[in-house]
Amino acid sequence: MTSRLDLFIDRMVSQRACLDFAIAETAVMQGPVFELGLGNGRTYHHMRNRIRSRNIYVFERAVASHPDSTPPEEFTILGDVNATLPETLSRMGAVASLIHADLGGHNREKNDIFARKVSPLIEPLLAPGGMMVSSDRMYFADLAEVPLPEGAVPERCFVYQKPHG
Amino acid sequence: MTSRLDLFIDRMVSQRACLDFAIAETAVMQGPVFELGLGNGRTYHHMRNRIRSRNIYVFERAVASHPDSTPPEEFTILGDVNATLPETLSRMGAVASLIHADLGGHNREKNDIFARKVSPLIEPLLAPGGMMVSSDRMYFADLAEVPLPEGAVPERCFVYQKPHG
Repeated sequence: MTSRLDLFIDRMVSQRACLDFAIAETAVMQGPVFELGLGNGRTYHHMRNRIRSRNIYVFERAVASHPDSTPPEEFTILGDVNATLPETLSRMGAVASLIHADLGGHNREKNDIFARKVSPLIEPLLAPGGMMVSSDRMYFADLAEVPLPEGAVPERCFVYQKPHG
Repeated sequence: MTSRLDLFIDRMVSQRACLDFAIAETAVMQGPVFELGLGNGRTYHHMRNRIRSRNIYVFERAVASHPDSTPPEEFTILGDVNATLPETLSRMGAVASLIHADLGGHNREKNDIFARKVSPLIEPLLAPGGMMVSSDRMYFADLAEVPLPEGAVPERCFVYQKPHG
């Protein structure tokens, strides 16, 4: 039987595989990267490590990350994503080259309700060709689900892409 | 460069590989298994899943685990391990077939100080042939360091064994 440790390892390994893939696929794009939910900052640390020439904005209610992995203030967008995502859209437009979300808690049902709610707020922020990586299944109107890269475990991570122009 | 996400994945994967190895190596033993530090209970869930005929006692200051992964009260030893480990030794003797510890926080130096402090409290609890799996290097007088199993990353996990009788 699969243990919670097995599931967790699959989720982390898949998250890294999908992120590395989406970072490479969008490397020619100039637009910023959005990290939704900072948590303790491990994934942000990873993205900062692999993304060289794009700004990374972090959306978070309240920053409580490891000191190594705390974003600069000018790239931190504090508040509830239900408010900050639409605000960012009116300020910046459809600019994001990559959006990553690991919003999920332990409760699958709650995660799914939340995913349905934020999907329409995330979708318009992506530039044409931009990608979205999520630990939960999302509900987008016009993004295509992209086949998972090698090393990712089905259902543990999801990759989406906005059609090119 | 290695990111904090990379390190974390290596640590979790190594922990599982070392645990599965030590569970198999000690499977013929009857003595209980001790889990030092429950955290959110993922590793306990994994051990309960793979260990069929041994009792698993959990040592923890205060239980705050996922509901799926909370040990029964009679197998929970509440309190500071500096007190509960010696108490358990006087009550049960050198009985443990396997002890697992993931006591570490984010601070390497603090982890090392703590490892030096608890090592002499852990060592006498093991039965002859019993094994200890730790995410930090431990400081034992008479336990042998066991070569890591396949899949474990050096320095991310450590396995020790008390000499057979």
